[in-house]
Amino acid sequence: MEITEKEAGKLEVILKAAQKKFAEFGLAKTTMNDIASELGMGKASIYYYFDCKESLYEAVISKEQEHFLQEIQKIIKPSVSAKAILKVYSKKRTVLFEYCLNLAKLNGEGLSNCLPFVKKLFDEFGQKEVELIKSILELGMTNEEFAPIHAGVEAEFICTMMLGLRQATKYKMKESLMTKDDYKILNSNMSKAVDMFISSIEK
Amino acid sequence: MEITEKEAGKLEVILKAAQKKFAEFGLAKTTMNDIASELGMGKASIYYYFDCKESLYEAVISKEQEHFLQEIQKIIKPSVSAKAILKVYSKKRTVLFEYCLNLAKLNGEGLSNCLPFVKKLFDEFGQKEVELIKSILELGMTNEEFAPIHAGVEAEFICTMMLGLRQATKYKMKESLMTKDDYKILNSNMSKAVDMFISSIEK
Repeated sequence: MEITEKEAGKLEVILKAAQKKFAEFGLAKTTMNDIASELGMGKASIYYYFDCKESLYEAVISKEQEHFLQEIQKIIKPSVSAKAILKVYSKKRTVLFEYCLNLAKLNGEGLSNCLPFVKKLFDEFGQKEVELIKSILELGMTNEEFAPIHAGVEAEFICTMMLGLRQATKYKMKESLMTKDDYKILNSNMSKAVDMFISSIEK
Repeated sequence: MEITEKEAGKLEVILKAAQKKFAEFGLAKTTMNDIASELGMGKASIYYYFDCKESLYEAVISKEQEHFLQEIQKIIKPSVSAKAILKVYSKKRTVLFEYCLNLAKLNGEGLSNCLPFVKKLFDEFGQKEVELIKSILELGMTNEEFAPIHAGVEAEFICTMMLGLRQATKYKMKESLMTKDDYKILNSNMSKAVDMFISSIEK
């Protein structure tokens, strides 16, 4: 739909409140009422933009995805070495997931039981991340930093490893949210894994 | 309790049936009746050995753990290179988890929501696995295959990576059980990760 500037501002505010509530209670336990209360608005104002909770959730995830990918795009510059980009990427990934709380949760619940549209959102994000890493690896081959490799296969591998390290951290954690110590261990494992990976493909 | 040979045989049969049923339905959804029906016994025969479902489950997990650790112990021989042992370990781990279905499930549900006694079982197993890997790394240092490293820290890292790769596979899978293709991808990722790890500590 065409929206005015005022409406766009309101949409932004709704998305922010929804992001907060979904991050707090998850998709299943957040109601449109919770989000309306957070905003001090009537539910009707939200329904003007979103016909159901699920489409609002989808918009929140899309916004977080976009933010994540844009931030990562910023560090990919042909003038910087691919190795350095990969290292920054693995660090920034953890920091970004702290902002993208719903994306991170999506990234933490497992797919076998989730709703089909949530599964689709995750798959799309996963594919975009693989493409992103693939482009970094290709840059590294062009720069002759890396030996000739199957960039797509290696990108898939490093993404699986990063997903896995995050899952392992979440798996072992004692609280329901990651603590500072969990982040510290995750960051150190990520760096170690990425360094090992870089050594394995270096020229 | 002291048990006769006949009783030991019966215990073995109960554990086997329980292992099958728990693997099929999980701890929460398996009843003592399910296990008794599987055996064609009355429930009283099971209660003679186990006072509740949880203690039977604990016995099943202990049995699987023991089997797992014994099988792994078999491949640790001072005459074999530590590198070779690590490689075999990563392959054998996947195969063993197919037999140790309840241990594998325990290893796949996340700890934040599980019962305290299940968490304890997992933690114990995790610690034993770290110790096992640590002893392989120490062997490698004695053999002068590996550079001087903090064996405990590195063992913790490789265990986290293996747990993570398994979790990532489970996370992405479409079915509720791992398919042959899932195992193929997991095995290939495991080998790759272990090879990378070995290269990173080689002398």
